[in-house]
Amino acid sequence: MPQHQKVFEELCQFVRETSLLNSTLSLLGWDERTGLPKAASEYRADQMTLLAGLIHRRRTDPQVGRWLDELADSPLNAEKYSDTETVIRELKREWNRQIKLPAPLIEKLTHASVRGQHFWQEARRQDDFKIFQPALEEIIGLKQQEADALEFTTCRYDALLEEYEPYETTSNVRIILEGLRDELVPFVHTIMGCEKTPENAFLTKHYPIGDQKRLGRQVAETLGFDFSRGRLDTTVHPFCSSLAPHDTRITTRYDAYRFPTAFFGILHEAGHGIYEQGLRADWYGLPPGETISLGIHESQSRLWENQVGRSLDFWKYHFSLLQSYFPTVLERVSLDCFYAAINDVRPSLIRVEADEATYNLHILIRFELEQAMLNGDLAVRDLPEAWNRKYQDDLGICPQNVAEGVLQDIHWSSGAIGYFPTYALGNVYSAQFFGHATEDLGGCGTDFSEGQFEPLRRWLKQNIHLTGKCYSARELVHRITGKELSHTYLVDYLKNKLSPLYGLS
Amino acid sequence: MPQHQKVFEELCQFVRETSLLNSTLSLLGWDERTGLPKAASEYRADQMTLLAGLIHRRRTDPQVGRWLDELADSPLNAEKYSDTETVIRELKREWNRQIKLPAPLIEKLTHASVRGQHFWQEARRQDDFKIFQPALEEIIGLKQQEADALEFTTCRYDALLEEYEPYETTSNVRIILEGLRDELVPFVHTIMGCEKTPENAFLTKHYPIGDQKRLGRQVAETLGFDFSRGRLDTTVHPFCSSLAPHDTRITTRYDAYRFPTAFFGILHEAGHGIYEQGLRADWYGLPPGETISLGIHESQSRLWENQVGRSLDFWKYHFSLLQSYFPTVLERVSLDCFYAAINDVRPSLIRVEADEATYNLHILIRFELEQAMLNGDLAVRDLPEAWNRKYQDDLGICPQNVAEGVLQDIHWSSGAIGYFPTYALGNVYSAQFFGHATEDLGGCGTDFSEGQFEPLRRWLKQNIHLTGKCYSARELVHRITGKELSHTYLVDYLKNKLSPLYGLS
Repeated sequence: MPQHQKVFEELCQFVRETSLLNSTLSLLGWDERTGLPKAASEYRADQMTLLAGLIHRRRTDPQVGRWLDELADSPLNAEKYSDTETVIRELKREWNRQIKLPAPLIEKLTHASVRGQHFWQEARRQDDFKIFQPALEEIIGLKQQEADALEFTTCRYDALLEEYEPYETTSNVRIILEGLRDELVPFVHTIMGCEKTPENAFLTKHYPIGDQKRLGRQVAETLGFDFSRGRLDTTVHPFCSSLAPHDTRITTRYDAYRFPTAFFGILHEAGHGIYEQGLRADWYGLPPGETISLGIHESQSRLWENQVGRSLDFWKYHFSLLQSYFPTVLERVSLDCFYAAINDVRPSLIRVEADEATYNLHILIRFELEQAMLNGDLAVRDLPEAWNRKYQDDLGICPQNVAEGVLQDIHWSSGAIGYFPTYALGNVYSAQFFGHATEDLGGCGTDFSEGQFEPLRRWLKQNIHLTGKCYSARELVHRITGKELSHTYLVDYLKNKLSPLYGLS
Repeated sequence: MPQHQKVFEELCQFVRETSLLNSTLSLLGWDERTGLPKAASEYRADQMTLLAGLIHRRRTDPQVGRWLDELADSPLNAEKYSDTETVIRELKREWNRQIKLPAPLIEKLTHASVRGQHFWQEARRQDDFKIFQPALEEIIGLKQQEADALEFTTCRYDALLEEYEPYETTSNVRIILEGLRDELVPFVHTIMGCEKTPENAFLTKHYPIGDQKRLGRQVAETLGFDFSRGRLDTTVHPFCSSLAPHDTRITTRYDAYRFPTAFFGILHEAGHGIYEQGLRADWYGLPPGETISLGIHESQSRLWENQVGRSLDFWKYHFSLLQSYFPTVLERVSLDCFYAAINDVRPSLIRVEADEATYNLHILIRFELEQAMLNGDLAVRDLPEAWNRKYQDDLGICPQNVAEGVLQDIHWSSGAIGYFPTYALGNVYSAQFFGHATEDLGGCGTDFSEGQFEPLRRWLKQNIHLTGKCYSARELVHRITGKELSHTYLVDYLKNKLSPLYGLS
């Protein structure tokens, strides 16, 4: 075996072992959020901190740097986008990033994040932002230090965004998000002016949770989530976690009086799960077997939740099944009426409950506010006022308390700054991907209305899942669709779908 | 802080960190047995092997040996049975044991255990001992090497027994077990000669699993298992696992047509769990906060399962509750009839389903056979025949196939040699403890018949759980009861309880 091949194997072996620890850390996290006895959370934090420390030490091990240096000029690094070049490129990017972060700063961030979530919960409970303010000030200060340690060319936000959406820039995200605002604010305004309002009271009737569970599992399976390689569990804040090449776990929460919560939540998480299950198992824990970015991950969840799950064709197949599960509530509801209800557009205060058209406006608000705090243009104490003003300007509504306003999301309290835009990017990617997939497949409508989701799933696996981290998000979009990433596909999709529902041409 | 105090703190900190890893390993094991997707078991084995390796390296770290040497003559080691002396004594014992085991032998044993379980399952499925034979031969060979590496004075079995029942010896266990056989074989024979046979067909009627779950949880809670610090889940092979000072998880299996399986299984595991929950949380992961031995652990589970759960007084309180859960099956069954049925004595082939009187005879058979194999007196190929002969001799019945004979237990296939006698020791301890507890408490009968289990639980916590590993099992028995360990308490308990049920004086 040539020397560079030997070095490559050693490097991969080392990283695979780190992944064994990292996937164990994920199990600790999954268990914490699905079934940990209340009294055990402190010890769990200790377990997770220890493992995170072991993992960080391995990720910044000088030996990794030496191996990567040895491989830089080897034939394994010669062919751009090959598996081996991807391994070397992406491990190098990650290693360069990690070694810039001093261990004491990481410890402070970990600690501030635990404290932050604690005070955030307390502030929500007491409806008092001031309780959270000092913790958030500490977090913002530490995230500024983190961005400075990571170094950046244009702005601090770039350095943090890189963690969630590699190779993306703040200025390019801004173009996308402002493009969405310019189109969607007037569009939503027009819808609000319509006389037509879908009836939707039946969505908040009684839907027994046991039936919701059975239905959700059945539909997730129909879409292609493989339960021999995964699970569906109950939690408070739904998520998807990959614990092994053949162990992908999705979670949801159930509301007996709000049908969409769990149902579309399961579709969403199943979308994440199908992405994880579509990765190359033989490369698990190494870049060719890893997901590209949070934005691409979100594109998969939103695609199954919205482009598929909120389409008329999907419900042509599923509506009678749904009626059979909940006959008393739905026997007098027509398919068209149901379809209109689950696509109702209406400015609202809570991001996770927003419709497809207004959702991205919630994101833009957070994107702008977190940048302003990071740059020092907005003091944390002034955040609630700035938040409310933006909701008034962009959505025409104003929160009456901080729980449905500035404190609704957990992200900032856990130190996740630069995370929010990946949600909107996910929507933008999903529209562009789905548009191209339907072209490639000669339309998906007939498939969906016959309960056939395998062709779409196969297309996604072939074009996206199996490519691992070989391409950046934007490279992948261009490679698949032949076009640059653009917000116009999402705008067109929304206008085409929603206009008829409101009698707009 | 004096130097020895500093060393002690460092040692404890190091061991506590090892416990963080070890409890994480336990979570991997718990999850594997309660909900791991089938396809994920190979990767899970890799995760567990890596963690076990990290833990072994820490447990044999030369620094631990140096710390212990430094502490040997310190004031912290002066007072026998104190917390600090217990830490030093027990860590030293464990360290001395671990460093004797060469890493390659441990790896071979781990590997052979995985292989062993695989071939054991396959042999059971095909009802063919020969499929398992080579794997068991390998295991026995490795366990001989292990015993030789660990060194011993009298016999190899001593060295292996020490892992499960510290400070115990083969010859003393033999005295106990043979004492039980000498008394119980004729006693069971007498019972078999009785004309009186309890009616028990109602125990195998339909008991819906959902109701069994609710009842089991309710009763476990009544006995004192704390669900804010624990869970109850479903599995194939029930167990109890402690994952943190405040995270004890018990498991059971349900059979809709066999009431005793889950019900007494839950009482049994709750007994294990109550022991874990009664330990000193501030010493978690260190000897003063650890359980003494498998035998003492088993004494707690058997005590709640049998001395409590199969007593008439327990059912005086619980029988109407049981009837309310399963009215159709039990409305015409009387309390006395039910009590007789759950205490029916009858030689049977399967250990885990055996009654209290014959149970220990199953153990003696395994105890003798595993010693014979370890000493080289019995070839593995002759094991099935030897097994069947002993069942014929001691229990008067003979298995018709290996699944209900020599292959019924998983232990040998996973390399657990020396484990079985701890089950019988648990029964012996439990009878001696319970006898003394009822004396101390002035009888438990009235308490039980009024649903009061807190006095007994408190007694066990005070006398057993809170002492951690400060005393050996036999020391503890003597300390509590003022008597040497003896099988006579168990024999008396069984005769007193069972004789009236069969009209024997």
